[in-house]
Amino acid sequence: MVVVMKRGFTPEQLETAVRAMEAGGVRVMVSTGTETTILGAEGNAAGIDQEKISLLPGVDRVMRVTEPFKKANRKYHLDNTVIGLGSGAQVGGGKLAVIAGPCSVESEEQIECVAMAVKKSGASALRGGAYKPRTSPYAFQGLQKDGIALLQHARAQTGLPIVTEIMSTDNIEMFEMCVDVIQVGARNMQNFDLLKQLGKTTKPILLKRGLSSTIEEWLMSAEYIMAGGNGKVILCERGIRTFENYTRNTLDLSAVPVVKSLSHLPVVVDPSHGCGRAWMVEPMALAAIAAGADGLIIEVHNDPSNALCDGAQSLTPAQFQSLMDKLEPLAGCVGRTL
Amino acid sequence: MVVVMKRGFTPEQLETAVRAMEAGGVRVMVSTGTETTILGAEGNAAGIDQEKISLLPGVDRVMRVTEPFKKANRKYHLDNTVIGLGSGAQVGGGKLAVIAGPCSVESEEQIECVAMAVKKSGASALRGGAYKPRTSPYAFQGLQKDGIALLQHARAQTGLPIVTEIMSTDNIEMFEMCVDVIQVGARNMQNFDLLKQLGKTTKPILLKRGLSSTIEEWLMSAEYIMAGGNGKVILCERGIRTFENYTRNTLDLSAVPVVKSLSHLPVVVDPSHGCGRAWMVEPMALAAIAAGADGLIIEVHNDPSNALCDGAQSLTPAQFQSLMDKLEPLAGCVGRTL
Amino acid sequence: MVVVMKRGFTPEQLETAVRAMEAGGVRVMVSTGTETTILGAEGNAAGIDQEKISLLPGVDRVMRVTEPFKKANRKYHLDNTVIGLGSGAQVGGGKLAVIAGPCSVESEEQIECVAMAVKKSGASALRGGAYKPRTSPYAFQGLQKDGIALLQHARAQTGLPIVTEIMSTDNIEMFEMCVDVIQVGARNMQNFDLLKQLGKTTKPILLKRGLSSTIEEWLMSAEYIMAGGNGKVILCERGIRTFENYTRNTLDLSAVPVVKSLSHLPVVVDPSHGCGRAWMVEPMALAAIAAGADGLIIEVHNDPSNALCDGAQSLTPAQFQSLMDKLEPLAGCVGRTL
Amino acid sequence: MVVVMKRGFTPEQLETAVRAMEAGGVRVMVSTGTETTILGAEGNAAGIDQEKISLLPGVDRVMRVTEPFKKANRKYHLDNTVIGLGSGAQVGGGKLAVIAGPCSVESEEQIECVAMAVKKSGASALRGGAYKPRTSPYAFQGLQKDGIALLQHARAQTGLPIVTEIMSTDNIEMFEMCVDVIQVGARNMQNFDLLKQLGKTTKPILLKRGLSSTIEEWLMSAEYIMAGGNGKVILCERGIRTFENYTRNTLDLSAVPVVKSLSHLPVVVDPSHGCGRAWMVEPMALAAIAAGADGLIIEVHNDPSNALCDGAQSLTPAQFQSLMDKLEPLAGCVGRTL
Repeated sequence: MVVVMKRGFTPEQLETAVRAMEAGGVRVMVSTGTETTILGAEGNAAGIDQEKISLLPGVDRVMRVTEPFKKANRKYHLDNTVIGLGSGAQVGGGKLAVIAGPCSVESEEQIECVAMAVKKSGASALRGGAYKPRTSPYAFQGLQKDGIALLQHARAQTGLPIVTEIMSTDNIEMFEMCVDVIQVGARNMQNFDLLKQLGKTTKPILLKRGLSSTIEEWLMSAEYIMAGGNGKVILCERGIRTFENYTRNTLDLSAVPVVKSLSHLPVVVDPSHGCGRAWMVEPMALAAIAAGADGLIIEVHNDPSNALCDGAQSLTPAQFQSLMDKLEPLAGCVGRTL
Repeated sequence: MVVVMKRGFTPEQLETAVRAMEAGGVRVMVSTGTETTILGAEGNAAGIDQEKISLLPGVDRVMRVTEPFKKANRKYHLDNTVIGLGSGAQVGGGKLAVIAGPCSVESEEQIECVAMAVKKSGASALRGGAYKPRTSPYAFQGLQKDGIALLQHARAQTGLPIVTEIMSTDNIEMFEMCVDVIQVGARNMQNFDLLKQLGKTTKPILLKRGLSSTIEEWLMSAEYIMAGGNGKVILCERGIRTFENYTRNTLDLSAVPVVKSLSHLPVVVDPSHGCGRAWMVEPMALAAIAAGADGLIIEVHNDPSNALCDGAQSLTPAQFQSLMDKLEPLAGCVGRTL
Repeated sequence: MVVVMKRGFTPEQLETAVRAMEAGGVRVMVSTGTETTILGAEGNAAGIDQEKISLLPGVDRVMRVTEPFKKANRKYHLDNTVIGLGSGAQVGGGKLAVIAGPCSVESEEQIECVAMAVKKSGASALRGGAYKPRTSPYAFQGLQKDGIALLQHARAQTGLPIVTEIMSTDNIEMFEMCVDVIQVGARNMQNFDLLKQLGKTTKPILLKRGLSSTIEEWLMSAEYIMAGGNGKVILCERGIRTFENYTRNTLDLSAVPVVKSLSHLPVVVDPSHGCGRAWMVEPMALAAIAAGADGLIIEVHNDPSNALCDGAQSLTPAQFQSLMDKLEPLAGCVGRTL
Repeated sequence: MVVVMKRGFTPEQLETAVRAMEAGGVRVMVSTGTETTILGAEGNAAGIDQEKISLLPGVDRVMRVTEPFKKANRKYHLDNTVIGLGSGAQVGGGKLAVIAGPCSVESEEQIECVAMAVKKSGASALRGGAYKPRTSPYAFQGLQKDGIALLQHARAQTGLPIVTEIMSTDNIEMFEMCVDVIQVGARNMQNFDLLKQLGKTTKPILLKRGLSSTIEEWLMSAEYIMAGGNGKVILCERGIRTFENYTRNTLDLSAVPVVKSLSHLPVVVDPSHGCGRAWMVEPMALAAIAAGADGLIIEVHNDPSNALCDGAQSLTPAQFQSLMDKLEPLAGCVGRTL
């Protein structure tokens, strides 16, 4: 922790600041520059309330020098975390995880058809929305409980673990019983009440990055889940909001190497939501793996032009197969297998 | 609704698109340009699934021509909505509403002291956080139930209605019983499950704008609450996230005239969170009222440098009094009273 | 200057870093924390190449503690700078400066008509574009030299000083001879070659903020002009680019108190470009003055619906008069006159 | 072109709007919806001033249905444009172009050493800054003319064509004579005066995307150059400005497939400026090629920790060789050669 004094501070103000830091259990080194004087904490500064120090008279600002996330931090956990998704599939190791399926579960025929197709193409897990976050209260809100049942049925048929989004703490018990990986959507990334309760579950959590979340805030949301006792957090980059409107969001692939450097947790990429256009999914999926992602989450629909949700960004099973064919040699170029 | 055909569409594709629109209950006018052909819907296009049309072969895109929000739309409700906050205070009429109080309720002495001070200065309502959304799981999370009790106590002493943030659907019943205005924080603006359940309550909802929410998305979140049956939504601009870091957020005051034009709902401004620095609160509060806001929400703390949360942006009671003194004549310049 | 060492640095790396700092002429204080070790510079750190230090092995990062702008910095120039615009008009003092006129100079009748109208309503100066920066090469590019001549003619008739935008260093000599205030547009805010050459002129420079410029970068562009010898820089906030599309840009009024705090230079606001819609100009102009701006720059056109450029955001002379009528009492509320 | 009428428009207003459109040479189709009435243009709407129509009473807005760029548009030029860089190197065809070299030319030894190293590793061209755009007037501004001479010398030694940034129209003649590819930096992307004059040269122009430029604005800047007669424009994505601060900018790789779809011009990616950190260059360079880029521009320095500019993002020659080794097989996966 570093404290920068204001120009023209008084000796009394300096002493007050030093004492406040010392009261937090550190020794303080004073460096006197021509324009600024700075105070450095020697020892463990974790017990000091930085905001309180920043409000003292004569103090200009306090600069943090360590990351605020601990359990998610690679500094304290050097090896990559590998997380089992169910049925033997994993994410975070040498083999890429590809989670595929429709935006929404719509019917038994639909989910069966898509599940069998993506299984055949080599997907690791099946995704499908049962509870849907929609901007409009008048839009289709998902099949809800019936959707979960249809996903379980598809799992029984294909053996693929199922990944689906939770929207309410009311459903945690049911999700823990029925699904393999619980997804937290971008809009709920800072629904702290939900994160806390998911910290008490035993299932892997796929945590999407919020539309305007910094990488640090995203890792702090992972920290909420981990602090509750559940270390199985899979991070998912799905595009951030910028001024550019041609794409639905701006897929931030540079977040992949950054997260792999700051944290030991696995990171996957969702090019379907990131771009919002089916024809962009293939190049951006290839780019994500080239950038070092541990896997992908891809929307696949048997009949995109009749999808109840997000048809514009869904691949057909044939397009998905074609993507998988291209992914395999590319994965080899970055030391991975499909 | 307008459908733009792709360059080189076939007559069959045109016919398919026209029929799909007609199936939705409209007549279709075809306009043939040199570069593009467009299809206009004649009649009520509400029953047409625009995304489905946009995926038809030969269709380039579908352009919406009406706003997706209805109950919040000024087109169907010309007069300003005036909402009672409790104890006779109102927002949305000629008299400005000023909601003031600490970021967090910390103790009986603190909330009493602040409540009496802001009451004396002319505040309309008391704010205070009991359940706190914090980026870090290791930060102070609020006094929770005890905080609500302390707010009720302060209301009993001052007569000020109380405004506090809800973070979980588990607390809706308790909030409906105990508080006067239920606040939805920026991070929960698209927690649709929470919005739906608040739509069934009878209390006014103060809906903060999300950090990266467009004005349209914000009004759609109001629409969620209104669609559930609760028309008492107060919108609150509190800053959006941009590339500029000097301020905590970028307070978007232009949202004030825009919202007043698009919607009949009242809009208030929170310069404390918008700027994150106490010395900026006064100029930005004055600017908000000059821009046409119906009120303000201001953080006031008896001892900012010892606040448990957001001390850096809190006014002292004396600074709040000074702000109120300056607000009064300025309100008169824009046809308002304080 | 503060240097933060990486976790696990070696004693040799520490010594190398310390010596590199000492070679820059400072003494170094070492503070050893449990997680990080930091080095504080004692003395004048201006001679140290911070980037070079940041690349040394074992160094995590270097944190700057002083602002990089000097001549524009209020720390070294406590009083507000007041700048003459010509013909006795000033900006930066107690009296607000209102610069008004059409987006583009179109004809003698047009500029005369607008100039006389805004003069009558109390404007301090006349604006009008002769060289126009247009996104499309196929759009109207301005009357150029003829436009400058028409502005001079309007000045002769009304006595109003004239403000117009420069787009090329080729025109500096002519501008210095013919116009009173030289405007640098948002797109040229970091056209450093232009800024350097304007630093050698004697005319006031109205420097618009770039669409994605931080406040610090904007002040650094002012510093370019001042470093060249021309201290007469007027800053102009005109909206930044964000994700919000309802308005043309997002007018960042919080920049006004920030700039007034960091710098002694005057700051004016352009609500016409900031919002892009004529009906929003009045509320945002009032808000700008309430926030502490030293003046306004407003687009006024005698016939907005036939303007060759930006008609959608232009006020009519009658609307401008009405704005001025409302501005006067409001200016009084913040200690200013009109 | 589509015109949307306001709710409650009068028959006279409709007629005025229709006549104004007809005056522009189109026939007008009127579609009457329950909430809105829309007017579609039949025929060539290019001659209509859309802004003027949008200001007519009763008109709500005008929606454009065709792109504003023509010469850069793939619709009118289906095949990829392949541009020669000099000495037989090309960009836009099957073989990737890799442009490498230091941020700034610093000395004969430095540029020779880097040029020979990147040549040996297989680079197509040498980059190096002689005129440097720097945020601070007090920072190193480049060797200028001497830098150009050193680049020419390095070209003579290695046979690599040279790419360098222009900052002023004053230097166009000299650049046309001395360099092979003229770079326009991000800050000058909308320096329209510069673009116009470059349109009259015969050299390829490497046009970097502005920090807050939409893809459409970027293509419109290419259009400026092409409209002047120079069709040899190479687009370069180098990161946009967002709220995320961990990286220097946010490299928008999704711009690559978008530009390849909208335009026939080649597009290259600059991961060095995009990320600002040397260790991120390799993964993002691989990702760029996987996304479909036609080439890369990479900063390489023989001694990054003593670079006069941007050392933090420069690769050493050995790191560059390692990147090239990884690029080769990956290029093959997307149908390219190195």
